[in-house]
Amino acid sequence: MKEEALLSKLQPQMVEWRRYLHRHPELSYHEEKTSAFVADRLRELGIDVRTRFGGGYGVVGVLKGSKPGKTVVLRADMDALPIQDEKSCDYSSEVPGVMHACGHDGHTSILLAVATYFSARKEDLPGEIRFVFQPAEEVCPGGAKGMIEAGVLEGADAVYGVHLWTPFPAGTAASTPGPMMAAADEFFIDIIGKGGHGGMPHVTVDSVVAGSALVMQLQSIVSRSVNPLRPAVVTIGTIQGGSAQNVIAESCRITGTVRTFDEETRQFIRERIEEITRLTAQTYGAESKIQYLMGYPPLVNDEAETERFFREAPKVFGESKVERCEKIMPAEDFAYYLQEIPGCFMFVGAGNEELQAVYPHHHPRFDFDESAMLSAAKLLVTMTQSYQGWE
Amino acid sequence: MKEEALLSKLQPQMVEWRRYLHRHPELSYHEEKTSAFVADRLRELGIDVRTRFGGGYGVVGVLKGSKPGKTVVLRADMDALPIQDEKSCDYSSEVPGVMHACGHDGHTSILLAVATYFSARKEDLPGEIRFVFQPAEEVCPGGAKGMIEAGVLEGADAVYGVHLWTPFPAGTAASTPGPMMAAADEFFIDIIGKGGHGGMPHVTVDSVVAGSALVMQLQSIVSRSVNPLRPAVVTIGTIQGGSAQNVIAESCRITGTVRTFDEETRQFIRERIEEITRLTAQTYGAESKIQYLMGYPPLVNDEAETERFFREAPKVFGESKVERCEKIMPAEDFAYYLQEIPGCFMFVGAGNEELQAVYPHHHPRFDFDESAMLSAAKLLVTMTQSYQGWE
Amino acid sequence: MKEEALLSKLQPQMVEWRRYLHRHPELSYHEEKTSAFVADRLRELGIDVRTRFGGGYGVVGVLKGSKPGKTVVLRADMDALPIQDEKSCDYSSEVPGVMHACGHDGHTSILLAVATYFSARKEDLPGEIRFVFQPAEEVCPGGAKGMIEAGVLEGADAVYGVHLWTPFPAGTAASTPGPMMAAADEFFIDIIGKGGHGGMPHVTVDSVVAGSALVMQLQSIVSRSVNPLRPAVVTIGTIQGGSAQNVIAESCRITGTVRTFDEETRQFIRERIEEITRLTAQTYGAESKIQYLMGYPPLVNDEAETERFFREAPKVFGESKVERCEKIMPAEDFAYYLQEIPGCFMFVGAGNEELQAVYPHHHPRFDFDESAMLSAAKLLVTMTQSYQGWE
Amino acid sequence: MKEEALLSKLQPQMVEWRRYLHRHPELSYHEEKTSAFVADRLRELGIDVRTRFGGGYGVVGVLKGSKPGKTVVLRADMDALPIQDEKSCDYSSEVPGVMHACGHDGHTSILLAVATYFSARKEDLPGEIRFVFQPAEEVCPGGAKGMIEAGVLEGADAVYGVHLWTPFPAGTAASTPGPMMAAADEFFIDIIGKGGHGGMPHVTVDSVVAGSALVMQLQSIVSRSVNPLRPAVVTIGTIQGGSAQNVIAESCRITGTVRTFDEETRQFIRERIEEITRLTAQTYGAESKIQYLMGYPPLVNDEAETERFFREAPKVFGESKVERCEKIMPAEDFAYYLQEIPGCFMFVGAGNEELQAVYPHHHPRFDFDESAMLSAAKLLVTMTQSYQGWE
Repeated sequence: MKEEALLSKLQPQMVEWRRYLHRHPELSYHEEKTSAFVADRLRELGIDVRTRFGGGYGVVGVLKGSKPGKTVVLRADMDALPIQDEKSCDYSSEVPGVMHACGHDGHTSILLAVATYFSARKEDLPGEIRFVFQPAEEVCPGGAKGMIEAGVLEGADAVYGVHLWTPFPAGTAASTPGPMMAAADEFFIDIIGKGGHGGMPHVTVDSVVAGSALVMQLQSIVSRSVNPLRPAVVTIGTIQGGSAQNVIAESCRITGTVRTFDEETRQFIRERIEEITRLTAQTYGAESKIQYLMGYPPLVNDEAETERFFREAPKVFGESKVERCEKIMPAEDFAYYLQEIPGCFMFVGAGNEELQAVYPHHHPRFDFDESAMLSAAKLLVTMTQSYQGWE
Repeated sequence: MKEEALLSKLQPQMVEWRRYLHRHPELSYHEEKTSAFVADRLRELGIDVRTRFGGGYGVVGVLKGSKPGKTVVLRADMDALPIQDEKSCDYSSEVPGVMHACGHDGHTSILLAVATYFSARKEDLPGEIRFVFQPAEEVCPGGAKGMIEAGVLEGADAVYGVHLWTPFPAGTAASTPGPMMAAADEFFIDIIGKGGHGGMPHVTVDSVVAGSALVMQLQSIVSRSVNPLRPAVVTIGTIQGGSAQNVIAESCRITGTVRTFDEETRQFIRERIEEITRLTAQTYGAESKIQYLMGYPPLVNDEAETERFFREAPKVFGESKVERCEKIMPAEDFAYYLQEIPGCFMFVGAGNEELQAVYPHHHPRFDFDESAMLSAAKLLVTMTQSYQGWE
Repeated sequence: MKEEALLSKLQPQMVEWRRYLHRHPELSYHEEKTSAFVADRLRELGIDVRTRFGGGYGVVGVLKGSKPGKTVVLRADMDALPIQDEKSCDYSSEVPGVMHACGHDGHTSILLAVATYFSARKEDLPGEIRFVFQPAEEVCPGGAKGMIEAGVLEGADAVYGVHLWTPFPAGTAASTPGPMMAAADEFFIDIIGKGGHGGMPHVTVDSVVAGSALVMQLQSIVSRSVNPLRPAVVTIGTIQGGSAQNVIAESCRITGTVRTFDEETRQFIRERIEEITRLTAQTYGAESKIQYLMGYPPLVNDEAETERFFREAPKVFGESKVERCEKIMPAEDFAYYLQEIPGCFMFVGAGNEELQAVYPHHHPRFDFDESAMLSAAKLLVTMTQSYQGWE
Repeated sequence: MKEEALLSKLQPQMVEWRRYLHRHPELSYHEEKTSAFVADRLRELGIDVRTRFGGGYGVVGVLKGSKPGKTVVLRADMDALPIQDEKSCDYSSEVPGVMHACGHDGHTSILLAVATYFSARKEDLPGEIRFVFQPAEEVCPGGAKGMIEAGVLEGADAVYGVHLWTPFPAGTAASTPGPMMAAADEFFIDIIGKGGHGGMPHVTVDSVVAGSALVMQLQSIVSRSVNPLRPAVVTIGTIQGGSAQNVIAESCRITGTVRTFDEETRQFIRERIEEITRLTAQTYGAESKIQYLMGYPPLVNDEAETERFFREAPKVFGESKVERCEKIMPAEDFAYYLQEIPGCFMFVGAGNEELQAVYPHHHPRFDFDESAMLSAAKLLVTMTQSYQGWE
């Protein structure tokens, strides 16, 4: 990377931006001021900006270089969470009950810095870079879908994204080829029996027994029906049936979540849950209803682009600081971009005990080591230049 | 029965009393005005009265005859239920949310009429009659226990009670030797696991799966462990675990009721529930707590006194109108009296479609055919005279 | 009973007959010599005899009295069991592997004695007595069915039978109105999955898991679906699945027995077992086959004829020696006769510790107190005379 | 690889050896003639030979080079399977019921060829090569353990092994870093209840219900207790309980297999199975016994040596013919060697439709493309030379 100093000089700027955004968090689908802030910064750089992109508060900046070349998409997310900030520092959230507890303020700042860097190097740039600031990563159906439908990937060749990640220490980076983050789907089941006197089970259909049998039988999906080499989780999060200890419950509600890393397993589990639910209810003479919500798909990194990461990232972080990480169970709507074009999603370590940056994502005391933003910006620049073949 | 006309003349009086009580229902353990009303009536008859008997609002009237003989106890209950009266008639409940929905107003009036009859025949009476008006039949631990502990059965020879029963038509009576009404016990179980992320079951202890397994395993008590010739019910009324579909539940609460007709089965089921709960929780690595409340014992009629019923009741109701009924699942604290001395509990049919007396006990529109009160009063008189050997 | 001495004189004769039959037992549907022996004895008495009645080795003797009157059927069974006699006494079975281990030798002798008595009193007899010696009580479909289809009950008014019963002491008798012995039905289920490598469950359908789930779900029939006041048993006697610990089982076989005391419950349980089997197999993606064999129906005594037993039996056994017994779980094809005409099946106590008559029926050391035969004969005579109104 | 022609010339020799061994298969722990054959061949090469190594029929040939260097261990296995050969060709098994159905005849021949090659190049050889022909790979506890305990790895630096693999086509090779083949453990459980009459469950302890509950609860290990990212299988291969449909089973036997890829999960599952078995039996009032046999550990390839494979194998097979394969569920006692020193286990494709080499390993018609032996020999030579740094 030439002109690396350019980026390093941007570090205080990134911190300022990030703290401003941290003080003014906005919930998913409500990123009005954040997107305006982003658009203003991009316009100041002379970048061509489109706002309200994809039906929400999406912002896309397009930087065309002076030479022909590949088109690379870099993506940040902008939304905050409905969590009360419990940190006490001068950049704590000023909005009650809303907080940047996942680091999207950092992601936005990083991408603004990267845009600044590439603007300065427009003359050398072969091809095009699109700076994509998407809304609503935290809530299904997610902002990515709208951005893609509105054409953000049209004609693009590769896509990269970073996630600041406090479980890993600042100064490290990690990714993995293939499936990296889970698909997270949800289901809501009602078993409808026939309530009645607790002493007269024979004139009722006991929905609590049917529901409990269902919970037991759903265990067999992971234990028997799924390929043991394809990680999968079927969790029953809640069961609620009946209202009095001496009355047989009319109905029983069961809700849960499913995590998978490939579409085939994902669809198969859905079919099995629907089938087991229907037939178990019938077995007990009950009826059933099921609502099944498909969340984000599994995030699957491109093999070649992940190899690029393992080749390029050590130049930023040092050889020993780049790891192949394990799959993780949370979901990410970056998965949608990777369904369309090759790319890689990368974790940038942002934990730091000295700075109290030790809380997990979505925790009311979540914070990250701001120095990680510079590493992340360098990583995005390096990946982009590697893909486009310049430096 | 001599002087039967005496009783018949009391019928309008019973209706008046019953309707007064129906308009002014009082909840279990709060039968202040009802007991005062009863005591006043008994005193008017010149009967020796004790109030606040047994620690609550119990009333006992003692009528000693002119000749030596046996002591018979006749029992009525006085409490109403926390149900909003939905009947619209001139004797509907005047107390919001409280209602005589089980016929105890009738039972009280019947026993007052019987007391009136025997007062008038005091000269012929051999032995003693105790008119017991107990509080709190509807709520555990029940009024009967306190009455007995306070000595209401001391030196007594036999005990009788009636229950107006709308599932049977007015003009009929029924009972059965041995077990007639169930013991009703209750349990409240907490399965305490370890909550966590829905995608990481291995670092949690899933209380919903443990709870569902428990529900399934509890089925084996009735299906395998209890003598098939001893009727028993184990019902799980409620199951409640977890608060979000994508979070593994920290704990799961299960409550239920147990119905049995003999003490051995009753105790055995308690032991099995406690054991299965403890071991199933352990099997899944969870902890468990169980609270087990013993309700009323099974109501077991004396064989000889039930034979007396089958001999005497036809004289009141006619041969074809007296039946041996099946056991029923509700519980009755009259069971406590029968644990101490011989006696018989008797159903007096009180249903009547023409009068809209068709709703089950504890229903907001419950009512009974008031003519059944006269039959019931005659039955109590007849049983008492039969036992004491006069007429 | 007049001429009671006649019967008493027959006691040594009964012992001789019984010991002869005991030495020469014949299996169900093979009672060739036994039936010939019975026919010879009846013919010696001048009784009208029909052999090979009902398609097997059934024998019917018809004794018509000199006066008009009611027709009473008295029934004995003649078959032995495939059990090796382990007694060592001079009347032990001489047939290897075959034994009268249930007392049918006694029943046959008793009925021959009763026939002898009534033959002697033919002049006083009002009406008709049919002495029914049926084959094959021990094996479904049972000999009773054929006898009835061949007309043994045509024009008959009442039917009586006794069972010598070693769990009760000699000198006692017992019966109960209504249901007394269970219906015993059987089922044979195959769950057909898809076998495969123990490490690759996802390409198989695990019939062992499906079978185990079925066993658990069948528990709910008795625990939830059957009226708790109607005794019922669903037992899984065997489960057999798989042939190697590291291969997933292609199929799993489950067999069991059902005991009930009323036809409604009996049919209902059959429906539930078939339904739960079909749907549970489907739930796991398996197929199922079920063979359901209806055995003998519940044995239900006529109320009035059982009252007759309680009135008459004390004359033979003494007031304190006659009891109302509990229902029992074994089945009896006497049940078929009681489906057609009123009657009563009666247990005659035959246990005696001093005589080593302490083993349960069907035990290789089974024996009974032979004095019970005289009591049983007197009981049958008394019941018959009571019904016909003579003595 | 220099002198590659040397190896190619050995191909007809390998075929001859292999067909000889194929005609004369010997079962695990009975490799008497095979080991003598191997020892003779090695001695002919002038290699230092030790026989009866490791307590069985193990053979070790040690070839010391003329120069100092690293010590590499190359391993083949020699045992056949108790399967009847169903091929009809001139090299079919001549031993009834015994067959080389897994390719160990090929492995032995390959290693003999490799030994021949290196003997010829002894002058150039830096360091030492040990040719390990182990017995009993097919049967626990396996031959590898004894070889290691007898010191076959003492002072050795690296270990390599190949498996001819018909699911992959001849001309290809595959391996994977880290866990590649499963640990396969086995368990044998007895649930001891109390048998009895099918109609009297309350005086028994039903071992079939307890056993079925156990099968259901064991499902929770994989579905809930194991890290979803650590592949694991718990299979119940057999369940056997009871002997008659109308008798409650005294005991129920359950056997199964467990597959895992890491020691932590492996030990954890063992603990859970033992715990769930003990507590579930107790829950139903039954006793339990469990025998748990630990089979081979997971086969875990060294990261660096697998990288070497991915670097070197393309030189033999061509770039596009070398793949990173998925983990597989069968177990291999080569795993023991890899627990001691770095190394890599490699699949060499040996399937060929034209040659009917299409049947899975352990199939009665199993055969392989013999040309794969040459590729395999070259692979072992290349890996060895790469490790020792010569060619």
